[in-house]
Amino acid sequence: METIHDIGKGARRAAYFLAKASSDEKKLVLLQAASNLEEKIEETVAANRKDLEQARKQGIGGALLDRLRLDAERIRSMAEGMRQVAGLHDPVGEILGMTRRPNGLMIGKRRVPFGVVGIIYEARPNVTADAFALCLKTGNASILRGGKEAFHSNKALVDLFQGTLNSQGFPPEAIQLVKDTSRGSAVEMMKARGIIDLLIPRGGAGLIRTVVENSQVPVIETGVGNCHIYVDRDADREMAVHIVVNAKTQRPGVCNAAESLLVHRDIAAGFLHGVAKQLKRRNVEIRGDETVCSLIGNAFPANDEDWGREYLDLIISVKVVPDLDSAIEHIHRYGTGHSETIVTNHYASAQKFLEEVDAAAVYVNASTRFTDGFEFGFGAEIGISTQKLHARGPMGLEALTSAKYVIYGNGQVRE
Amino acid sequence: METIHDIGKGARRAAYFLAKASSDEKKLVLLQAASNLEEKIEETVAANRKDLEQARKQGIGGALLDRLRLDAERIRSMAEGMRQVAGLHDPVGEILGMTRRPNGLMIGKRRVPFGVVGIIYEARPNVTADAFALCLKTGNASILRGGKEAFHSNKALVDLFQGTLNSQGFPPEAIQLVKDTSRGSAVEMMKARGIIDLLIPRGGAGLIRTVVENSQVPVIETGVGNCHIYVDRDADREMAVHIVVNAKTQRPGVCNAAESLLVHRDIAAGFLHGVAKQLKRRNVEIRGDETVCSLIGNAFPANDEDWGREYLDLIISVKVVPDLDSAIEHIHRYGTGHSETIVTNHYASAQKFLEEVDAAAVYVNASTRFTDGFEFGFGAEIGISTQKLHARGPMGLEALTSAKYVIYGNGQVRE
Repeated sequence: METIHDIGKGARRAAYFLAKASSDEKKLVLLQAASNLEEKIEETVAANRKDLEQARKQGIGGALLDRLRLDAERIRSMAEGMRQVAGLHDPVGEILGMTRRPNGLMIGKRRVPFGVVGIIYEARPNVTADAFALCLKTGNASILRGGKEAFHSNKALVDLFQGTLNSQGFPPEAIQLVKDTSRGSAVEMMKARGIIDLLIPRGGAGLIRTVVENSQVPVIETGVGNCHIYVDRDADREMAVHIVVNAKTQRPGVCNAAESLLVHRDIAAGFLHGVAKQLKRRNVEIRGDETVCSLIGNAFPANDEDWGREYLDLIISVKVVPDLDSAIEHIHRYGTGHSETIVTNHYASAQKFLEEVDAAAVYVNASTRFTDGFEFGFGAEIGISTQKLHARGPMGLEALTSAKYVIYGNGQVRE
Repeated sequence: METIHDIGKGARRAAYFLAKASSDEKKLVLLQAASNLEEKIEETVAANRKDLEQARKQGIGGALLDRLRLDAERIRSMAEGMRQVAGLHDPVGEILGMTRRPNGLMIGKRRVPFGVVGIIYEARPNVTADAFALCLKTGNASILRGGKEAFHSNKALVDLFQGTLNSQGFPPEAIQLVKDTSRGSAVEMMKARGIIDLLIPRGGAGLIRTVVENSQVPVIETGVGNCHIYVDRDADREMAVHIVVNAKTQRPGVCNAAESLLVHRDIAAGFLHGVAKQLKRRNVEIRGDETVCSLIGNAFPANDEDWGREYLDLIISVKVVPDLDSAIEHIHRYGTGHSETIVTNHYASAQKFLEEVDAAAVYVNASTRFTDGFEFGFGAEIGISTQKLHARGPMGLEALTSAKYVIYGNGQVRE
């Protein structure tokens, strides 16, 4: 079987080609790949069926099995996603300001691809199409190491994309699937300095932690979200209920869903009654501190672990706090730096919250669910970074680019 | 002795304070620290003398001992450097564009400090003052782990800075020196995820490699430079000689000095004679390929290792290439992605070189020696990054900042 080193050699050659490819050429490949994908729906569904059968034999079910499944509608939506990426502005080549130095040197910063991007992910074949589109658009070669459960689906997709690349005069090594789905291949990727320029883990908290802690290749950490909503004394209570219900229940299984509610003590009694009613109607379990449990019925007592948990489920932890400072302190202690909201009509409290809360996205009077590349208007999303290096928050195409300085001289030397 | 964990706790509290400090307050601390430094020249020199004596006993001499030495002039120049940083524009708080989404959300990207920056370096006490000024200016707390050879000097400096911080109402933990200078403390820093937000190794290639390969904390790799100058067929030969001599000899021990010269074969005979004469006059040893050795006398034959070496000395490897493509290929194979120059008057060759060479700084008709924060007009330099993530090339104050999204809503929820 090919080693990461072998795959990497082809990827580096492809990256060299991709860095020079024009925006029009890259766009054409993506549009053609989308059409090919729609033409081969049956073949792709058939490949996916093999994965589904194996998964069922292994007792995989529920949400996992659902994420693994491809049907005609999902494949059409993948193709549509690729067309959308094709239509976006190509960030590569853009000059980010050019200055003229006193000695006459003209110094500009130019956006360039990273080169080779590695993506380690779980059993979600849609990530395969996503990664291909986003990396190709930004001139990066991609090395994909998906979960073994999705192997047949991923292989069918990558074969199709490689065929498209070939037919458009692009090197097929612009996208490569790692066929060894053992733990060993992931470890090899994490050690592939000089071969892989950037590694992005996409999946559960365990996968991300493993990559972040073990990789020698630069990583972008995509995120766990223990997101809070703080309802201030001066909140519009109706708005606050609306936001809490939306952030908790509109899609509880995602990282920008709210997991914890903090309420100012002066309004706690009245507000908690109202919000608890709405949450219970939507089958949300409330785990509260002592005050919460004494104020409303049907709340379970929260233990210390609850404050740090990302439930990804219809459960919310609720705490009464004496003031804004305590709310910020609680968020600093238990938050994961993803998305945090204050609901208030008090100007200074809003500004203080925006200033002092250290997270990728800090909101006033809006649901945490907006932390998303599409909602932010980027037109695409590679993931949501919870690290501070390079990219933080929703990542669009620009997050997949680096820069280099280009300098025009006319014989300058240093004195 | 304090563990990194203990030090980290103080640093995080200090970082919280620093993130809120105003630009004026931070500026005042730096100006006061510069004055205090100039007032305590004798004490600092005395502390440094202890380090120098121990170093001499251990047989340390030459360049290493020189870097370790502090005298009145050097201390004044450190203070002057701090005043310059004090006078720079504070990047923290800047809003990098704010957009209004169709649903009315106002989304802005705000520059914020990283939080806690760790710096691992060798026996250069000037890095201590540098790191303090740059981190404080950008609102970051710093944890400094310098080499044991400079311990007394570093301690004197950090004590002085902590005294200044205290007197200005800042937490002294804004700068902390790791007193354990064993390998163990460096390893502890590399494992301090959640305590240290960013780790910057400054020093030799060995130190940098160790940190990059072992750190679980995000790292900015500062760089090894195997920099090339390619003299094209259409070069102004006088300019080319001038640039080669400057890039190789003006300060051979630094990372942006040239290490390798590539010459187009059509002009090789004449050009090499001219440049060799100038290089020999400055005691530069030439290690050439076969053609070079046959064209000029006094060239030593280069072996395969020479092409990849960063000499940091008065030695240059020289190769004759058949065309621009071969030059670019050679640079891709042996370069370290630092600084690369083409000397040419051919428009298309210049543009092709700028486009295809993958390095932090790519030049036309100028010396590689300009890759430097001051020469680029940043007013400061934390180092020169040779990685592609977050910062590439000379790093000014902005490289020590991250960003967060601040979102102003009026009740928006996600449909």
